[in-house]
Amino acid sequence: MLKDFVTTLNTKWLDASGPHTDVVISSRVRLARNLKDLPFPHLMNEEHDNQLIEKLRTTIDSQNLVKKTGPLEFTLLKELNSLEKRILVEKHLISPEHAGSSSGGVIFSKDQSISIMVKEEDHLRIQCILPGLQITDSYNMANTLDDLLEENLDYAFHERYGYLTACPTNVGTGMRASVMMHLPGLVLTKQVNKVLTALSQVGLVVRGIYGEGTEPLGNLFQISNGTTIGRSEEEVVTNLSSVIKQIIDQERVARERFYNGNKLHLEDKIMRAKGILENAKLMDSDEALKLISALKLGIDLGIIEAINLKVYYNLLVAIQPAYLQYTSGQRGMGPEERDKKRAEIIKEILRK
Amino acid sequence: MLKDFVTTLNTKWLDASGPHTDVVISSRVRLARNLKDLPFPHLMNEEHDNQLIEKLRTTIDSQNLVKKTGPLEFTLLKELNSLEKRILVEKHLISPEHAGSSSGGVIFSKDQSISIMVKEEDHLRIQCILPGLQITDSYNMANTLDDLLEENLDYAFHERYGYLTACPTNVGTGMRASVMMHLPGLVLTKQVNKVLTALSQVGLVVRGIYGEGTEPLGNLFQISNGTTIGRSEEEVVTNLSSVIKQIIDQERVARERFYNGNKLHLEDKIMRAKGILENAKLMDSDEALKLISALKLGIDLGIIEAINLKVYYNLLVAIQPAYLQYTSGQRGMGPEERDKKRAEIIKEILRK
Repeated sequence: MLKDFVTTLNTKWLDASGPHTDVVISSRVRLARNLKDLPFPHLMNEEHDNQLIEKLRTTIDSQNLVKKTGPLEFTLLKELNSLEKRILVEKHLISPEHAGSSSGGVIFSKDQSISIMVKEEDHLRIQCILPGLQITDSYNMANTLDDLLEENLDYAFHERYGYLTACPTNVGTGMRASVMMHLPGLVLTKQVNKVLTALSQVGLVVRGIYGEGTEPLGNLFQISNGTTIGRSEEEVVTNLSSVIKQIIDQERVARERFYNGNKLHLEDKIMRAKGILENAKLMDSDEALKLISALKLGIDLGIIEAINLKVYYNLLVAIQPAYLQYTSGQRGMGPEERDKKRAEIIKEILRK
Repeated sequence: MLKDFVTTLNTKWLDASGPHTDVVISSRVRLARNLKDLPFPHLMNEEHDNQLIEKLRTTIDSQNLVKKTGPLEFTLLKELNSLEKRILVEKHLISPEHAGSSSGGVIFSKDQSISIMVKEEDHLRIQCILPGLQITDSYNMANTLDDLLEENLDYAFHERYGYLTACPTNVGTGMRASVMMHLPGLVLTKQVNKVLTALSQVGLVVRGIYGEGTEPLGNLFQISNGTTIGRSEEEVVTNLSSVIKQIIDQERVARERFYNGNKLHLEDKIMRAKGILENAKLMDSDEALKLISALKLGIDLGIIEAINLKVYYNLLVAIQPAYLQYTSGQRGMGPEERDKKRAEIIKEILRK
């Protein structure tokens, strides 16, 4: 019961609601915050840890906060084993770095649309993640939560530089707003590099599905603001939103053009992907991401009608190694056992 | 009604009955016969053609013959268009050479287990083809029919050499007994070349699915006697039968060994084949043969239970180009249209 949040697929961003889910998987806003009275995490000793944790426990239990955000649950990282922490990474709720830590903790709202990493690189990383293009809503949620927390906490803030952070690249707003996009149309029409390269010229950064330094897999691209200084949060969110809307349009045009020019071939590719997902006995992670990308395109284009978009969202998490290992109840699965379990889970989710 | 025999899949050898259908697709015996009073086909003029046809029409209508074989139907090749003739080739009922001819004809029994090519390379090529390993039954059928025909026909026969034929390689018995085998186990365990090479040492010949000079596709191999002289028909049939039984044993052992050593990988391969066959929108002939081979192996090993072996037999014919073109009612289909129609027909047959 305590650790329900680890394996549940009832995480808010997995419910496939929200606008533009044909192109945008999810929208996330993350705020880096530090307390004035404590050294940055890499300089904290055990006593500092305890002070931070105590302060936060009191803060999130404050009546005013609970009334506005619902109850938040604090879990210490040491209460979680490494597999459980890796699942939280796979669900994009904590960072890989945080999963590697044993001090600190995580704070979740019931539907995990709110997740706060405690003592990651900064004292607090407040995250709000929602399905579809809801970057403004995510920002508003994070901003409200930030204000509520500040009622009890003294943030390290500099009048000229803004919020102070452990790493200077986050100084200023401390905000990273990012949108996960599914761009098979731009990939198929070979426009994706052109489109994404242009983004760096407007101060945006593109990454693969698991953050910085990872390869784009399954036609998934994460687009976020590159700088945290010189612009207000509202400007950054508005700018990102407007660029994302342009990419959505480009992606839709690309899909339509490609589909019209290659109707049968695209339908063939999509239906084969569905057939393999429904029948395979072994499947590695890369193939699964590739095939569920085709499945989603089929759902978006109306080629596949019997499968709901939520199935895609669930698969996105359920095919990941740690989730597979955890749900199978097996310790130390080899790659083949994982590929077997992955094929089984895919079939199970598709049958629903 | 007249040309029912062209497109029907009720052909006897497609009913998947008979022993050892897990390894043996079909058994065929062919007898080459010529009439004493007429020159060989390549030397015949129109008058000779008419004489041959008239003689045969009378012969197959004889009460004694009809009583024993059931009614036989005579069709002139000129009554068939080239597409219809190519379908008969795809059903292994006439040879490609015969399909290219406009004189001559074909004689079929109702279930096409009997087919006689009239004026192919010889005046008569009597064929009996049955599903599974029934090479002795095929021989007995052909032999009985041969005797019945001889009651009305004077065959060209030499006391020392035996039956005389247009090509000296058929002189003697004039008999070619052949068995179509499905050998995925020997292919997967890489033993097939060793096994098949050994056959030439016992006077047998191995060919791909569409006769001499064609590549083995879909793990199908046609094995037949190499010589028609020096041994009686019974000896040839007995020898072939006993060799085929050994290959059946080797194939079964190979399948079991491979399956036990690669359970998941083989099941994965087979289930993916099924998934692709059930979902693809485009499929070329080579891929289809490869996938239905995996499907059959899945049926034989009990991995696929919901699909009947007859489905495989029907697919074997239904995926062929001329059959596809004929049943679609379209003239001059391009390769893509054919691949589309092939994918549709496969799905239709699998749904039954």
